[in-house]
Amino acid sequence: MFKKRENVAEIEEGNLLSPKFNNDGLIPVVTTCSKTKEILMHGYMNVEALKKTIETKEAHYWSRSRKEIWHKGKTSGFIQKVKEIRIDDDQDSIWLSVDIGDGSSCHVGYKSCFYRSVPIKKKNKIKMIFKEKKKIFDPKKVYKGFSNPTKI
Amino acid sequence: MFKKRENVAEIEEGNLLSPKFNNDGLIPVVTTCSKTKEILMHGYMNVEALKKTIETKEAHYWSRSRKEIWHKGKTSGFIQKVKEIRIDDDQDSIWLSVDIGDGSSCHVGYKSCFYRSVPIKKKNKIKMIFKEKKKIFDPKKVYKGFSNPTKI
Repeated sequence: MFKKRENVAEIEEGNLLSPKFNNDGLIPVVTTCSKTKEILMHGYMNVEALKKTIETKEAHYWSRSRKEIWHKGKTSGFIQKVKEIRIDDDQDSIWLSVDIGDGSSCHVGYKSCFYRSVPIKKKNKIKMIFKEKKKIFDPKKVYKGFSNPTKI
Repeated sequence: MFKKRENVAEIEEGNLLSPKFNNDGLIPVVTTCSKTKEILMHGYMNVEALKKTIETKEAHYWSRSRKEIWHKGKTSGFIQKVKEIRIDDDQDSIWLSVDIGDGSSCHVGYKSCFYRSVPIKKKNKIKMIFKEKKKIFDPKKVYKGFSNPTKI
């Protein structure tokens, strides 16, 4: 499915998919909402997750906390239907545009993982602003029995 | 400027900025166009680049190819004026919304680094589609004397 990376011109200007996976075998993925265009999440895929995403048209990631393939929405029900896949110039990051209906992408309960804005006027004592006021679901109910992926 | 990461609830639900830098001292950054909302690029910041971005309101990244702080646009002239900074739930990735005027973000010459789309209908022999037809600038002229950051 993927072409071997052999020369820079082909990687940058060609039409063959030659993704670059980092030393951990992962490629970063940015996922946006196909309706609002907002960024929903930033995750990672390994070779298998990328292949499964292309094959099933549903987003699959690599869960770094659980160290396993992560079919997004399998637990919460918020499946991400892939509308478009793009790759960047040097093919070391991916952009997924997905349809999540009225669902959510964030394990904390918000629609987007990026629910907080960092004010850029003050240099010290930065206090972030919540751009989403209401959670879409209650993570304590939906993820009952699962450990929190956020690590210190 | 940053709060020490001490507990998960504070990281996820608090209003203090506690970014997580990976083992290489970097945090991934997704940059979108404030006008069109399209993703322009995916890069990385170290502590200094993030501080400089907040202080100057112009995007600074860590160049992994040159191993130095990278004031985006210093060579090409395409400075990124920061309109908003967001951070995700576990504070290990950043979303920058920037104004680049009529400029470009991609060293290959296109507006967005994500100028190619991966068809998801076919599983084999994937041929990507160019979503941008025209380059905004000629990289051979603008980056004359600089080596190409794309590595095989």
